[in-house]
Amino acid sequence: MSEFSTSTAVHRIDATHWDAPVAPGWDIAGNANGGYLLALAARGMAEASGRPDPVTITAHYLSPAQEGPAVLDAAVVRSGKRFATVSASLTAGDRRLLQVLGTFGDLSVSGDGPERVEAAPPDLPVPDDCVPRRADEGLVLPFLDRVELRLHPDDARFQQGEPSGEPRVRGWFRLRHGEQLDTLALLVAIDAFPPTAFNARLPVAWTPTVELTAHVRARPAPGWLACAFTTRFVTGGFLEEDGEVWDATGRLVAQSRQLALVPRG
Amino acid sequence: MSEFSTSTAVHRIDATHWDAPVAPGWDIAGNANGGYLLALAARGMAEASGRPDPVTITAHYLSPAQEGPAVLDAAVVRSGKRFATVSASLTAGDRRLLQVLGTFGDLSVSGDGPERVEAAPPDLPVPDDCVPRRADEGLVLPFLDRVELRLHPDDARFQQGEPSGEPRVRGWFRLRHGEQLDTLALLVAIDAFPPTAFNARLPVAWTPTVELTAHVRARPAPGWLACAFTTRFVTGGFLEEDGEVWDATGRLVAQSRQLALVPRG
Repeated sequence: MSEFSTSTAVHRIDATHWDAPVAPGWDIAGNANGGYLLALAARGMAEASGRPDPVTITAHYLSPAQEGPAVLDAAVVRSGKRFATVSASLTAGDRRLLQVLGTFGDLSVSGDGPERVEAAPPDLPVPDDCVPRRADEGLVLPFLDRVELRLHPDDARFQQGEPSGEPRVRGWFRLRHGEQLDTLALLVAIDAFPPTAFNARLPVAWTPTVELTAHVRARPAPGWLACAFTTRFVTGGFLEEDGEVWDATGRLVAQSRQLALVPRG
Repeated sequence: MSEFSTSTAVHRIDATHWDAPVAPGWDIAGNANGGYLLALAARGMAEASGRPDPVTITAHYLSPAQEGPAVLDAAVVRSGKRFATVSASLTAGDRRLLQVLGTFGDLSVSGDGPERVEAAPPDLPVPDDCVPRRADEGLVLPFLDRVELRLHPDDARFQQGEPSGEPRVRGWFRLRHGEQLDTLALLVAIDAFPPTAFNARLPVAWTPTVELTAHVRARPAPGWLACAFTTRFVTGGFLEEDGEVWDATGRLVAQSRQLALVPRG
């Protein structure tokens, strides 16, 4: 088993419950990464549904999560020929961590309908010419030992206190040691990058996620993922962050959108 | 009570159940509009949460719905100072129609944080210079007696069999008789327009929604809503449709994204 599989392993307790411990080392300053938590929940939901791949999945983040025991409660609300829909919650003790709703299917069976793509992967220098994500001063990011992030040089200067001014972050993603990525690992990729707010010169230290939705279009080919995240609307105390994830063959494998809070300055 | 309020009225049965009948007249060729169904569910979820406004809400569409009795099962999974999160399902007889997950709050209390908008309302001629949506030949759309849609002339020619070739639909929305819009009515607006596929020259008659997510940023001012829907990725048998809804003061009031099926030709 790979490190990612081990870290998201779940063990069935009964028809609707799974032990789903929050593994060590996936945290940012003590709180488990939201994409990792979603992948952990999705692992159990996929098992409940009998389908390997999340097609569309939404998580509402209710409480920060720390390493330790957690229980997934997952109920299949509809099971059809092609898809199954699962409602689930992840709880640690009496604290609800996240509530999730997902539809699962089998993306190894590819659709043969019309194809039309009006966009292209982000224009990124090769990974070796990009800038590794490093922890901000005073911040401990064990998560960066689990994933590798290489930022577009134009989007990375916020690390030296020089945000680009554009609410955009582009870069490469892979799991450490180049572990093969499945569709659950894509759920980590969509929430692994620093917030677009860091480049937007917004006076905020963090933009906590209220809700995150991912559409998974295909299983990724081996190799780095090219990712791009942008924000167009910072209004009313909220911002959205839209993500695109492309695999090494230049195929869109996932889209994401999250709603995050912009804490009042 | 307005027609929309009456059509989305719910009546509490017990702590977690509401009578939520699917009202007549909101259907397209017999099946209730997806945005209307979401608004109906959201009405009960708002009541369950004690908060008036959906902030982010996701529905997975499980079965087509017809006019008639239905029951909403809504459970508050977390209630905090600012938001409450509700998981719900709408069921008719033994058929699950939709599964919904939403976080609710009070958008009359506006955030006073930083604001930044990188987009503008769609460039639409005034409503009288736009083209009313009319039912396609052979299709009965009672829904069009509930809402008024005025399409951008460039995006309306699919109605004469001349799609623009661009996967885009822009237009004005209001409820019939200019009824005042609340944040629940925004959930109708985001799913009221003809599919972008109709302009994309895709060989499909319909693109059924798998999942629809809306972010509501603000309560709309009185008047028409300016709406724009676009699709960038038709791949693997799926497409996304991204929506923006702006009110008469030029403020973004909602964003939406849905994942729809592209039936194989």
